[in-house]
Amino acid sequence: MRDPQTAARLMSREELTSQAAAVLSRLRGKSPRVHCITNSVAQNFTANALLALGAVPSMTLSGEEIGAFVARSDALLVNLGTFDRERREATSIAVDAASQNGLPWVLDPVFIDRAEQRAVYARDLILLEPKALRLNAAEFAALADAAPAREAVEAYARARRLVVGLSGATDLISDGDRTATLTNGHPLMARVTAMGCAASAIVAACLAVEPDALAATASAMVIVGIAGEMAAEKSRGPGSFAAAILDALYTIDAKMIAARARTDLH
Amino acid sequence: MRDPQTAARLMSREELTSQAAAVLSRLRGKSPRVHCITNSVAQNFTANALLALGAVPSMTLSGEEIGAFVARSDALLVNLGTFDRERREATSIAVDAASQNGLPWVLDPVFIDRAEQRAVYARDLILLEPKALRLNAAEFAALADAAPAREAVEAYARARRLVVGLSGATDLISDGDRTATLTNGHPLMARVTAMGCAASAIVAACLAVEPDALAATASAMVIVGIAGEMAAEKSRGPGSFAAAILDALYTIDAKMIAARARTDLH
Amino acid sequence: MRDPQTAARLMSREELTSQAAAVLSRLRGKSPRVHCITNSVAQNFTANALLALGAVPSMTLSGEEIGAFVARSDALLVNLGTFDRERREATSIAVDAASQNGLPWVLDPVFIDRAEQRAVYARDLILLEPKALRLNAAEFAALADAAPAREAVEAYARARRLVVGLSGATDLISDGDRTATLTNGHPLMARVTAMGCAASAIVAACLAVEPDALAATASAMVIVGIAGEMAAEKSRGPGSFAAAILDALYTIDAKMIAARARTDLH
Repeated sequence: MRDPQTAARLMSREELTSQAAAVLSRLRGKSPRVHCITNSVAQNFTANALLALGAVPSMTLSGEEIGAFVARSDALLVNLGTFDRERREATSIAVDAASQNGLPWVLDPVFIDRAEQRAVYARDLILLEPKALRLNAAEFAALADAAPAREAVEAYARARRLVVGLSGATDLISDGDRTATLTNGHPLMARVTAMGCAASAIVAACLAVEPDALAATASAMVIVGIAGEMAAEKSRGPGSFAAAILDALYTIDAKMIAARARTDLH
Repeated sequence: MRDPQTAARLMSREELTSQAAAVLSRLRGKSPRVHCITNSVAQNFTANALLALGAVPSMTLSGEEIGAFVARSDALLVNLGTFDRERREATSIAVDAASQNGLPWVLDPVFIDRAEQRAVYARDLILLEPKALRLNAAEFAALADAAPAREAVEAYARARRLVVGLSGATDLISDGDRTATLTNGHPLMARVTAMGCAASAIVAACLAVEPDALAATASAMVIVGIAGEMAAEKSRGPGSFAAAILDALYTIDAKMIAARARTDLH
Repeated sequence: MRDPQTAARLMSREELTSQAAAVLSRLRGKSPRVHCITNSVAQNFTANALLALGAVPSMTLSGEEIGAFVARSDALLVNLGTFDRERREATSIAVDAASQNGLPWVLDPVFIDRAEQRAVYARDLILLEPKALRLNAAEFAALADAAPAREAVEAYARARRLVVGLSGATDLISDGDRTATLTNGHPLMARVTAMGCAASAIVAACLAVEPDALAATASAMVIVGIAGEMAAEKSRGPGSFAAAILDALYTIDAKMIAARARTDLH
């Protein structure tokens, strides 16, 4: 299973599904609080995705109160969509509060391929040690200045000492030592705004209950991908799909994970 | 029915259902305008809940225009979620405009149990005489510095001369003289973000057509609780539930209220 | 068919349906990027409507990055809902970027009948030459200081050299030379917030792929009206309707347009 070109071990389907089932069960039991700095387009859907799965969201951006909110949370999400001065100030305070309280945080560098300033800012944030990055191929390319292939992802994760969760037709999740590949998901997920943002929030929720950041990130991405497939079976288009994936996040269980998870071992 | 420990009379089921039916009918006939200062997570769902029921929402926070919007409205909602400087300035202007125009307003002190500054601000706002407070047990405890039991709610309402609408497994609504208890609702309501925020907006809509603030608040909470039950019957999880409760707010009528309302008279 | 009182020619049903089918096909093929300055209530639904139809939305308001986003887009929407200082600054930069890059833009002067300052601002924006205005009767009256009848709409469009897309029981679309009337749509559209805002974003998406601004605007309004009818057939109220209209925007095709379009030729 070991790819000779990289140092990373490919995780097995059994390893991934048993981890995801354990993480889901802990998440439902503990109802972790996740504070989200996210764009105004995504706030509602992200909050609903967290609630559907069993976590408790909060969303304030106010500099005066965000420190108190983060300190009482179990994980933090920083999403760069619709990024403005208010969100930048909030992020600075929030990441500080997370560090002081030993909380894991996730960075979702939305659309950094569209404005160079956002990419610069994302690179600065990575120095503040997020546990995980969740992003798509264009965003990875803009961030890492490298093609979004397995070797580059593993090298980037190893160098930055974080987990990269790269979404795509095949998801690629790596901390540089271990790599998971996943092929769950459905094309309708790209037709609902904030789907990636909600996935990043779910990564944060999983990090709140699972100290192994690779296991947490891969579990979140298995859960979201399978929920997408479950939702597509009950949908007539992106509107009914958006409701159905929240239903699926609410009903998904260990059995569905075991039955549906697909890894991509070449 | 009178509880000897308090001064408040418990309202009967018949009183509550006939009031709620009358308020609903007036609301549908008059389509009151409700201006909402609410958090960005809740804006869309709150607007849709008001439209579904028959009211007309507006949501601007801009200091330059909010005075004009409130002056042309029939009621005002102030919700403290995601509270920032912009919302604080907007609130000051809006509450002023409401007072000058004799409009009722509702305060929803979201998450004041999470940040002390928000609780301080909520206490200041209560001096400006909202007609009703809608909140949950943790928020009441943070606000009133008292356990959220019937006696404390009645004492608080009497002292502040407002209506308290406390949501929970049993809703408790009181102005200190009269108290209503309601047990409608469904656990899925806690799995959709902004459900409480939307309920508070519906309290404002009912206050726009019913001068008796206790009747208005209790009517709103009966309507929302029953709509939640109707929605749960058609849902497979929180995503389909969020759509179904808007459908239910659109279709609920006097007959459904009469058939489904549940008071909790010990 | 020519109305003797006006200079404008009424477009035929065949002309409108074949244009709309061609525009829809190009839109699905090209996936144009539409940058939206819109109110926080409407952002999520607007993004989902664009994605459902096949366009790619972006929504940032940050002055530092909006210029870069607009420059990489194919069309711009400026919606005046919840209009504040941040949106005003963003609009100034964005309209500038659109002009410099030769991109079409649409103005949706939401609620200018509610606050005089907003109307003044809308009139200033019109001097910056949007390709199209989409608005309702009350907004047209406030903008043009004239009753929203056919002659006034045509005269306004001719004088400002833009397309007016006036929504109502009968939609009226005119550039002063040609006029289209449409009677598709459904009353539930008025019970979902941001429906008009999303329609304006779809006008922008159509302008991105169709240089004839009248054809683009009329096509967008045919598509939205028919999608509304398709959605109403599958709905139990405004909640299920909001999801169903996104499904309909995803599935609508040339055949449905040909079968369902209704013009109102007296």
